[in-house]
Amino acid sequence: MQAFRTESDSMGNVEVPADKYWGAQTQRSIQHFPIGVDRFKWPFAMIRALGILKKSAALANLELGELAPDIANAISQAAQEVIDGKLNGQFPLVVFQTGSGTQSNMNANEVISNRAIEILGGQLGSKKPVHPNDHVNRGQSSNDTFPTAIHIAVVDELYQKLFPALKVLRDTLDAKAQLFATTVKTGRTHLQDATPITLGQEIGSWVAQIDHATLLIKASVNGLLDLAIGGTAVGTGLNAHRDFGATCAKHIAYLSGHAFRSADNKFFALAAHDALVNTSASLRTLAGALMKIANDVRWLASGPRCGIGEIFIPENEPGSSIMPGKVNPTQCEALTMVCVQVFGNDTATAFAGSQGNFQLNVYKPIMVHNVLESIGLLADSCKAFNDHCALGIEPNLPVINRNLDNNLMLVTALAPHIGYDNAAKIAKTALHEGLTLRQAAQQLALVTPAQFDEWVKPMAMTKPE
Amino acid sequence: MQAFRTESDSMGNVEVPADKYWGAQTQRSIQHFPIGVDRFKWPFAMIRALGILKKSAALANLELGELAPDIANAISQAAQEVIDGKLNGQFPLVVFQTGSGTQSNMNANEVISNRAIEILGGQLGSKKPVHPNDHVNRGQSSNDTFPTAIHIAVVDELYQKLFPALKVLRDTLDAKAQLFATTVKTGRTHLQDATPITLGQEIGSWVAQIDHATLLIKASVNGLLDLAIGGTAVGTGLNAHRDFGATCAKHIAYLSGHAFRSADNKFFALAAHDALVNTSASLRTLAGALMKIANDVRWLASGPRCGIGEIFIPENEPGSSIMPGKVNPTQCEALTMVCVQVFGNDTATAFAGSQGNFQLNVYKPIMVHNVLESIGLLADSCKAFNDHCALGIEPNLPVINRNLDNNLMLVTALAPHIGYDNAAKIAKTALHEGLTLRQAAQQLALVTPAQFDEWVKPMAMTKPE
Amino acid sequence: MQAFRTESDSMGNVEVPADKYWGAQTQRSIQHFPIGVDRFKWPFAMIRALGILKKSAALANLELGELAPDIANAISQAAQEVIDGKLNGQFPLVVFQTGSGTQSNMNANEVISNRAIEILGGQLGSKKPVHPNDHVNRGQSSNDTFPTAIHIAVVDELYQKLFPALKVLRDTLDAKAQLFATTVKTGRTHLQDATPITLGQEIGSWVAQIDHATLLIKASVNGLLDLAIGGTAVGTGLNAHRDFGATCAKHIAYLSGHAFRSADNKFFALAAHDALVNTSASLRTLAGALMKIANDVRWLASGPRCGIGEIFIPENEPGSSIMPGKVNPTQCEALTMVCVQVFGNDTATAFAGSQGNFQLNVYKPIMVHNVLESIGLLADSCKAFNDHCALGIEPNLPVINRNLDNNLMLVTALAPHIGYDNAAKIAKTALHEGLTLRQAAQQLALVTPAQFDEWVKPMAMTKPE
Amino acid sequence: MQAFRTESDSMGNVEVPADKYWGAQTQRSIQHFPIGVDRFKWPFAMIRALGILKKSAALANLELGELAPDIANAISQAAQEVIDGKLNGQFPLVVFQTGSGTQSNMNANEVISNRAIEILGGQLGSKKPVHPNDHVNRGQSSNDTFPTAIHIAVVDELYQKLFPALKVLRDTLDAKAQLFATTVKTGRTHLQDATPITLGQEIGSWVAQIDHATLLIKASVNGLLDLAIGGTAVGTGLNAHRDFGATCAKHIAYLSGHAFRSADNKFFALAAHDALVNTSASLRTLAGALMKIANDVRWLASGPRCGIGEIFIPENEPGSSIMPGKVNPTQCEALTMVCVQVFGNDTATAFAGSQGNFQLNVYKPIMVHNVLESIGLLADSCKAFNDHCALGIEPNLPVINRNLDNNLMLVTALAPHIGYDNAAKIAKTALHEGLTLRQAAQQLALVTPAQFDEWVKPMAMTKPE
Repeated sequence: MQAFRTESDSMGNVEVPADKYWGAQTQRSIQHFPIGVDRFKWPFAMIRALGILKKSAALANLELGELAPDIANAISQAAQEVIDGKLNGQFPLVVFQTGSGTQSNMNANEVISNRAIEILGGQLGSKKPVHPNDHVNRGQSSNDTFPTAIHIAVVDELYQKLFPALKVLRDTLDAKAQLFATTVKTGRTHLQDATPITLGQEIGSWVAQIDHATLLIKASVNGLLDLAIGGTAVGTGLNAHRDFGATCAKHIAYLSGHAFRSADNKFFALAAHDALVNTSASLRTLAGALMKIANDVRWLASGPRCGIGEIFIPENEPGSSIMPGKVNPTQCEALTMVCVQVFGNDTATAFAGSQGNFQLNVYKPIMVHNVLESIGLLADSCKAFNDHCALGIEPNLPVINRNLDNNLMLVTALAPHIGYDNAAKIAKTALHEGLTLRQAAQQLALVTPAQFDEWVKPMAMTKPE
Repeated sequence: MQAFRTESDSMGNVEVPADKYWGAQTQRSIQHFPIGVDRFKWPFAMIRALGILKKSAALANLELGELAPDIANAISQAAQEVIDGKLNGQFPLVVFQTGSGTQSNMNANEVISNRAIEILGGQLGSKKPVHPNDHVNRGQSSNDTFPTAIHIAVVDELYQKLFPALKVLRDTLDAKAQLFATTVKTGRTHLQDATPITLGQEIGSWVAQIDHATLLIKASVNGLLDLAIGGTAVGTGLNAHRDFGATCAKHIAYLSGHAFRSADNKFFALAAHDALVNTSASLRTLAGALMKIANDVRWLASGPRCGIGEIFIPENEPGSSIMPGKVNPTQCEALTMVCVQVFGNDTATAFAGSQGNFQLNVYKPIMVHNVLESIGLLADSCKAFNDHCALGIEPNLPVINRNLDNNLMLVTALAPHIGYDNAAKIAKTALHEGLTLRQAAQQLALVTPAQFDEWVKPMAMTKPE
Repeated sequence: MQAFRTESDSMGNVEVPADKYWGAQTQRSIQHFPIGVDRFKWPFAMIRALGILKKSAALANLELGELAPDIANAISQAAQEVIDGKLNGQFPLVVFQTGSGTQSNMNANEVISNRAIEILGGQLGSKKPVHPNDHVNRGQSSNDTFPTAIHIAVVDELYQKLFPALKVLRDTLDAKAQLFATTVKTGRTHLQDATPITLGQEIGSWVAQIDHATLLIKASVNGLLDLAIGGTAVGTGLNAHRDFGATCAKHIAYLSGHAFRSADNKFFALAAHDALVNTSASLRTLAGALMKIANDVRWLASGPRCGIGEIFIPENEPGSSIMPGKVNPTQCEALTMVCVQVFGNDTATAFAGSQGNFQLNVYKPIMVHNVLESIGLLADSCKAFNDHCALGIEPNLPVINRNLDNNLMLVTALAPHIGYDNAAKIAKTALHEGLTLRQAAQQLALVTPAQFDEWVKPMAMTKPE
Repeated sequence: MQAFRTESDSMGNVEVPADKYWGAQTQRSIQHFPIGVDRFKWPFAMIRALGILKKSAALANLELGELAPDIANAISQAAQEVIDGKLNGQFPLVVFQTGSGTQSNMNANEVISNRAIEILGGQLGSKKPVHPNDHVNRGQSSNDTFPTAIHIAVVDELYQKLFPALKVLRDTLDAKAQLFATTVKTGRTHLQDATPITLGQEIGSWVAQIDHATLLIKASVNGLLDLAIGGTAVGTGLNAHRDFGATCAKHIAYLSGHAFRSADNKFFALAAHDALVNTSASLRTLAGALMKIANDVRWLASGPRCGIGEIFIPENEPGSSIMPGKVNPTQCEALTMVCVQVFGNDTATAFAGSQGNFQLNVYKPIMVHNVLESIGLLADSCKAFNDHCALGIEPNLPVINRNLDNNLMLVTALAPHIGYDNAAKIAKTALHEGLTLRQAAQQLALVTPAQFDEWVKPMAMTKPE
């Protein structure tokens, strides 16, 4: 039989499981928001960010003389346990709750105050000597703490998960681009045969896309370094020491290792989350880039005999439950499914971002949920795609060479010599009479075989002087 | 030098070009909303719908004794001129205006009242004997007239433009499906070679998609047949005769030829436009279907020598300004660009639809703008795609047959006889040793040549008994 | 120390945890797709649907003489255990995998075959006497089984979760609408005071929106009743008994309780999921409706002293960690966050739906994931909103009456008597001179006090004769 | 009777209106793409950009010895006429055409070559002495010219239209923020009364949002400064002088006044338009910000008697066709309709951006169309909103003061003195017993009147020391 403890808040008493540190408001939230409980509990990234914030706040209040040392130290110790993941079982709430994240902020306040009370030898639920609001939340409001924690969590996940995964993938592709720098092949525009490129150039374009998107995401981090902390309820900083925001941000920067700072305009920092929308958009740009790359890979690998088939990719698993021997570009499929999900998550984030009113946007939880999910999925799928697909890309030289030989767009090299219109005649003749370009050129007496051989050199066409 | 006439409304006097029928409120809107004037003037579909509505309202008020016959008849005559397009130059307003469409409703009221005054020998701008509000707008509010006009315009455009264009395209494709019913070719799943189908089956799947989407759009019309008219300002029907909504809807149905009816819940009909959102969504489903179809067409036509190349499509224009002789699947490109636009338009429509407050959604103009644009673009592009691409689709039999002969997935026909695992061995051996399936089967001694020939019959594989 | 068992597939041997029923392909998927593993494991709805499908397939194959009774019965028994949730720990795969769902189909095949082997006294991993492909998957391909399971899961979740939750909420609101049918209050259009309505009419409009959306979703179910089963690899039905699709659909209908049937065009059923896109769109329409409703509720409840404040909603929890005594419309916030998520999920679904190629759309897993998530979130949040908000809506009569008394738009009732222009003069005079309408009317000598009292009756204005 | 001239291209002869400069390919496009012709003709921004590009290309080719001076000068002169708008009637094509923009590139080539021929005394259609491909298009392909023109057009429109309009609006609002810096009023979070702020702080938050979005858009310009020119058909630069890209970019920079440069990776510049997607996203962020601002304005202005009513906005036009004297926040409505359209346009752009294949993205026209439309609409609507709404925002001091006096959240100032829980008791007592905070504090004996007056000072609460 489960034991309970009585906790209270300004609305009265609530029974809480005796083995939990959380208090009345957390328990109320569990009861009022049974929404998506299987999938929407907060990930550790957010819990940890709240821990960093609460520890920093205690240290700042200590530094500014707003909290007694014993209180501040107990809070700091308890918050460190949150950061270390030792209290993970104490955060039962889900994304769908009050739109300011108040209940998760109070969850942190309650858990940390009770744990600090325990450290100091007090009685759980007594709020003495550490009160969740008056001490742990001192100089703070959910309205500034929650967006602060959002920024911490997002920046941290970007650096811990996404950027390393992107780096590995771009390096793999870049190495392939170097390796295949002289593998000349058919270019394709409008899905139609075009003038030649090298496989290295083709893959290098993918690297450029990833690099571009990475730069965009990193640029977006700048907006996330501005922290709301210090704004309290509506942006004015009421009930916080005038230096609290800056001091707390300093501690957050130290604890997190990122250059966080106090936002210039706290009203903006509570009422809108445009920097987060921008980060979401840059993740969407990355997703669009990855979709193009994954599509190129699977089309180039299509076949094995009735497709384009110019590259090989690893055969990881049987592809079909009915067609024996079939192998499919499954990593491309998983990655592109992640991409469409990131588009969807971005839609939700941007929509939510537009719906603030007055001094508060009350879609904070769903915004950070979507951004964190996109970061995690992109990181995971880039890693899997790298390990199980990109690393194994190899050219199918016989097919590449056969296609290149047949490619009528080599005729383009003749245009500067004989003009566009004459060159077009050669290509059309070759196509409709089933000839090679060389044969057609000769038949039309527009180019001599010797000229043809001098002018039409596929490798040279990929590196114009 | 342009001459002006003084018009007035409840806010005072306004100078209006002397050669225009519109009045003070239209003129104010021109001055206050110089937004997108090059591209966002209302299309005739909306003007005509307002004409139908105003004529129907006059006839209903006449029938119910709310307007004197001479007034009603003059209004009716003027409104008929709007319907006939004779007053097109009298509607200068753009989509971006008040969110209820009040200014366009007043534009119709002002033009019709002044034209009716003229018919009756009165003086323009005098509001006598026909007042724009008291007579032309009698028993009406913008809040019920504008959504009524929206429904009329959308239903009419669907039947005038989209459904005919879809019918032509699906019939073209259906005829192709019949024609190529026995053209056996390689199926493809995951872009990889799969068991055979006929080209007719492949095209028939496109027909099924169009038919399915057409049914969805037609089903969505049902919600559009409910008219807001009769609700007046907030849905209560204040200042309208109790039978006005039903009587007016009857006239609208007669004039438009569609089975419009008075909505059961007028409050809903003003405060939300969920039926319009649903129509938009069904257009998006069509766009998704057309994107798949157009992509299939261009991939099947890719080449001419280094792609899949199993079908020919018409060569309509030179494809490249630099590559002589290049031909591109341009109709597919135009159609898929329309598809992404329809996705965008739907995003705007659904977002707008969610933003109503209390008794009114004030995003009416932008919603109907997007839906009408999507209808028009889909109709135009389906017609162009039909005329300049679909009609000319032909199989490239040599390529089709070569691919079919090489297709390792014919091995699937052996699985019921020798089991999935043995069949897989044959396919893998053929692939990695460069053999035909028949050779590999024989080499592995799993199937005799005679058995192979009996069991592996591509045409039979497309029509299992 | 964990024990392992060797399982094999056409690619070779794989070590599998000894206490698991799954086989080589499931294990390969675990290793190749470590993407979103915390949050993206398949929900029971999909597992159960696969169980229903596999049992139905075994029964159909038995009925058609394609499987021996002992094999069919063992499969059927094992599949029933899947349906009953007894094998939930055997389905470790996530959404991000091959885009056909092959690996989850094989997961079901492997678990059921091994469990059936166990039932029949065989050895796990031996594939004897029950082979995952040749017996459990008999007459099937992932390409037709997975979309079949999708349809089963979605329809079931709609009926089990969403429709009941919607019914409860609409009934609660409908009862409120009846209860407050004579509570006259200010209407609002453009956020500005408008002619009166009753609170019952206002709430009734919400009921109409929910009813309309429910009808749309139910209409969308019709498309989901068409099952792909019988199409096998590419839609032709290769390797399946000619009656397999229809017979299997019959069993699915019986087991699930929904009127599933074999789809007319199996090629369409594999290559596109337009019916699912349509269901997603109808869920988005519902989300748009709920967003409007939740916004109305929180605005009407805004205050307590400086907002509109015309209704009370339950005070569920302290609203602020810094502002003592604050209470917020948290259920509205959670619900609208769900709404934006549903918009996002729909974006992903529709995008994915447009990306099919040839005989297969390889975004099946992400599509069903988003639709199921939307269904679950909408159901959960409607229930929470009903229980903790809608049930407690009460009018704040003093505020309602004060607002009604002050409402200048009551002047509209005078327009039919004195004309729009004169009525406007009264309203403007009242507004700018701080008078009541009655005072302004008298001052302007346009209406006598007696006439005013006879004509301006708010309750009558809500129910025009 | 219209006269015609025969023009030709590599596909043969075409009749062209005799009074037009365009040639065969333009005419073919007119005939093959009758899609959205009323609304989708290219705006001057794109025509002008093509003119700048073609002039720059001629100058670069002249400089590099690739074109004879007389040819280059004639091309340059003709291109300057395009830039000057003198040939606007010569660009009849629409957005929906080939996805590379080839037909519009050829439209420019044809018009400029024929005009140059005319300048040089030749015969229209003769292609002598100036050939559209060999001379005007020298060293170019549609694949690099069209994206180059896109970048020129977008950057130019941003600087010509959007940034000035944003500057005016933010300056207006900033001046208001200064003006109302000491107007203390009720803050609102969750739509509920919160601690006080000044009207200047509230408006200042809007300024911060606009400033933030402006910075994002300007940052996005950096990616647009990279030009594809020099890449020709597939990115290799085939048939262009090795220095053509850099030299042409130099001329473009000079002619346009923006710091354009040759892109490092031309393959990326043709195959993907991620920088354009990023610009679109930053416009969406602006739209989200403007939606929040416009919503705040209309809610603060809601009433006149039954809403929040804390500010006045200009009364521009009669608001209702049925409710006399009604005035609505119409500029807010137009602006928010623009915002949802920008969201829709961004959806189309990002979707299109993800759909490239191999060496080319063939959604170029629809991408630039949407971005240019968003820029134009945002610029127009910001200007109208500034002129007809923002400039006239004034506080309604009686309402502001009454609300502030009633605001229970002033109690927050007591929390540091008496603790959160005691402060909550005061607020609840005041609310439920209809008291002022001061009365409730006294009744509960928690604070003396003197203390209350010392601690609760609304103005001080907005500027904590």
